[in-house]
Amino acid sequence: MGQKKQIRPETDLLVVYTGDGKGKTTAALGMCVRASGYGWKIAIIQFIKGDWKYGELEGLKLLGPNVELSVVGEGFVGIQGDTKDIAVHQKAAREGLEKAIAKVASGDYRLVILDELNVALSLKLVDRAQVERLLEARQPGQHLVITGRGAPEWLTERADLVTEMKEIKHPFRSGITAQKGIDW
Amino acid sequence: MGQKKQIRPETDLLVVYTGDGKGKTTAALGMCVRASGYGWKIAIIQFIKGDWKYGELEGLKLLGPNVELSVVGEGFVGIQGDTKDIAVHQKAAREGLEKAIAKVASGDYRLVILDELNVALSLKLVDRAQVERLLEARQPGQHLVITGRGAPEWLTERADLVTEMKEIKHPFRSGITAQKGIDW
Repeated sequence: MGQKKQIRPETDLLVVYTGDGKGKTTAALGMCVRASGYGWKIAIIQFIKGDWKYGELEGLKLLGPNVELSVVGEGFVGIQGDTKDIAVHQKAAREGLEKAIAKVASGDYRLVILDELNVALSLKLVDRAQVERLLEARQPGQHLVITGRGAPEWLTERADLVTEMKEIKHPFRSGITAQKGIDW
Repeated sequence: MGQKKQIRPETDLLVVYTGDGKGKTTAALGMCVRASGYGWKIAIIQFIKGDWKYGELEGLKLLGPNVELSVVGEGFVGIQGDTKDIAVHQKAAREGLEKAIAKVASGDYRLVILDELNVALSLKLVDRAQVERLLEARQPGQHLVITGRGAPEWLTERADLVTEMKEIKHPFRSGITAQKGIDW
């Protein structure tokens, strides 16, 4: 068993949703439902633009003004016709992460979601040192959620809760295209 | 590659969220956000009572009257001081599933979520034949989502999208108790 941590009846968690399966961002959206039910202020910082579409955006509006969504970045990186220099993407992502650090440090938000930050890390748009500054900026009672495939080990080691969304079956494999209400 | 299914630009999906990790019901809640953004009618049928608490319930209310939640069952089965005969739980679950079948068949709902139905199956509160009747009652353009650990193979075989939420790290293992905004 090793050393047992002290039981803390109320605490703040660092949550990581990773893996190649669907449901990571969707679970983060679900956390917004729960947190909104408590009237918490929520900040969502979305690192890979293009992932969130009409359904999510309109749905989040229904949860009310407690949910603040910021979109970071310069669109798709290296795919879908992107020909921008990587430095352009990096600048946008790093500036976005600085804004996220300020939001986390402000203590104004009980739930902060960094959507697809793992992907921004994998693509080297942001670096470990900057994400570590984000983790150090955490305030008591504030839950932090990081999503995206390919979470690095140093991050999952620091997290309290890690779920790997594992793809068992994906509709695209059967030739079914992205579906309204499921993918967008 | 085997036989390739015909591409259907718009279709309805049978989605299964299973596995021992956290995020299954949470992802289903996230699907409610997306679907509500499109103004869809949503039915949620919750098979294991006690799982959904204040945060979820109040949060769903914010999404508006398009979300209908039905709680099925007689509370925890065989744990938390439950001494009821299994037949009592079975009766409640089977009646609840009949109501769910009627909702699915009505075609009134674009998204139907059967929360923890996999657990009701594992506990033998409902049986495969009844769940198969539910699947046969599906209407065109209607997404059906089934959550809960231990999804049976016959179900994942029929599903279009299956994600296993795999527990990599769980805060309870470090002595951290269930947290507001995360677990309830």
